[in-house]
Amino acid sequence: MFEQLGLVGCGLMGGSFALALKRAGLVRHVIGFSTSQATRERALDMGVIDAIALSAAQAAQNSDLVLVAVPVAATQSTLAALVGALSPQALLMDVGSTKRDVVQAAALALGEKLPTFVPAHPIAGKEVAGVAHADERLYTGCQVILTPTEQTGKAQLAQAQTLWAALGAQVRTMSALEHDSAFAAVSHLPHMLAFAAMNAVNSQAQAAQFLSLAGPGFRDFTRIAASDPAVWRDILHANRDQLLLQSQHLREALQAFETTLAQGDSAALQALITAASQTRAAWSPKR
Amino acid sequence: MFEQLGLVGCGLMGGSFALALKRAGLVRHVIGFSTSQATRERALDMGVIDAIALSAAQAAQNSDLVLVAVPVAATQSTLAALVGALSPQALLMDVGSTKRDVVQAAALALGEKLPTFVPAHPIAGKEVAGVAHADERLYTGCQVILTPTEQTGKAQLAQAQTLWAALGAQVRTMSALEHDSAFAAVSHLPHMLAFAAMNAVNSQAQAAQFLSLAGPGFRDFTRIAASDPAVWRDILHANRDQLLLQSQHLREALQAFETTLAQGDSAALQALITAASQTRAAWSPKR
Repeated sequence: MFEQLGLVGCGLMGGSFALALKRAGLVRHVIGFSTSQATRERALDMGVIDAIALSAAQAAQNSDLVLVAVPVAATQSTLAALVGALSPQALLMDVGSTKRDVVQAAALALGEKLPTFVPAHPIAGKEVAGVAHADERLYTGCQVILTPTEQTGKAQLAQAQTLWAALGAQVRTMSALEHDSAFAAVSHLPHMLAFAAMNAVNSQAQAAQFLSLAGPGFRDFTRIAASDPAVWRDILHANRDQLLLQSQHLREALQAFETTLAQGDSAALQALITAASQTRAAWSPKR
Repeated sequence: MFEQLGLVGCGLMGGSFALALKRAGLVRHVIGFSTSQATRERALDMGVIDAIALSAAQAAQNSDLVLVAVPVAATQSTLAALVGALSPQALLMDVGSTKRDVVQAAALALGEKLPTFVPAHPIAGKEVAGVAHADERLYTGCQVILTPTEQTGKAQLAQAQTLWAALGAQVRTMSALEHDSAFAAVSHLPHMLAFAAMNAVNSQAQAAQFLSLAGPGFRDFTRIAASDPAVWRDILHANRDQLLLQSQHLREALQAFETTLAQGDSAALQALITAASQTRAAWSPKR
């Protein structure tokens, strides 16, 4: 049980976290800050937060749990703004989709309070953003990846693991590089490919005719292309080295298809498809 | 109203067509052939067909409507097998996902009976195959593309349009090349990319770790990668020239992303994502 959650960023991710903690009876009081006054007031009206903070520092003040749920690119400035008010015994977490940049931002911003910080990535989300879509069950059954460093406090890491498990999440721990490498492969590259596929169609004179003929397969394949541009600019940019590596793997896999097509090698083409189809059929998402 | 449907191929597509015609009261009798005895008997047991034909020719005999719903690669041999039994007044259609190869196969196989043939592609399907999944509403609300040639009979084309409309489909007419070009862009390339993305992940030592972290975005993006290998081998092979053209467009769109990432040009990156996101958000599938 935490006495006070200081929520910095009251959007979908942060708002859902506050609601989930409340539902689980794990927090007595939630004070929240958002750079948007409308969001602060909406969060208060919805009961996501119990009190409004007028700064990130005010949200951190007297909080034994602080969640920073802001765009990844704003992490360092946000941590710098609240570090002075942060208790050395607090548990501080983020929810960012990339982790090496967050770890670096924390190292630069937190100084001697670095042990409070447990970098976290709950694998959950919706295509919609904003506190209005906050959902107390957003994290139920999802995986949460923690990427502690050598500086991370043992007590804080244990608290973080217990907390997310209590919210119904499956907690895994790995290095920030392992995290970023894996998510480049299974999230960031698919997003970039879906964006590129939309742009490739749109670059052609017959784009409208093509799109008018697209069906359910195209719908699902490109669903993630509708994701928020600013959020995904930050993610792709932050993880660009691993993403470019994965893009190279994709180009090689694509080249294998192009070669069999150009050669008319139908048996080799079927073998490539069979490998993909079997891998996909054997896989199912954790939630 | 047709007196007799001769169904050649009693799988998902053919079986659903027979059930839809029956539901609409548009056919008096259905005789069906499948190369698989088990499928023939299952189709009869399910009431998809009223009688079993022991050859494609027997299914075509005395039928005023003939639907060939076989793998695209088997089209020419199937048409050649039934042409001798086909009435010159019949309406003959296929349901293939590629059309230039089917038009060519028909030209080679049908001779003077070519006017009976209206090439058709109903944009409908499921990830599952087989008569067991036949669904009388599979075509309700879907688009059906007809690609008549100069040899296609006017009466047959009009009949085909009326028939599909009566099943609740939206009928469009275009050339086989226009069809194949569009479907290379919005169906065949997405399938090839989904296959390649699975193979790219699977080619790496950390594949199991990567896949264990994949979430809902990956699930939807790769759903079509589980498609049937033999079916998609034929489709990709049949449309390889248009597919390779679309793959080149994709590579260029992907290159634009890679360049902005390598240059760290965050504004240009956001512009690329915004273009994709807006195009995707403005689009919705016909069904």
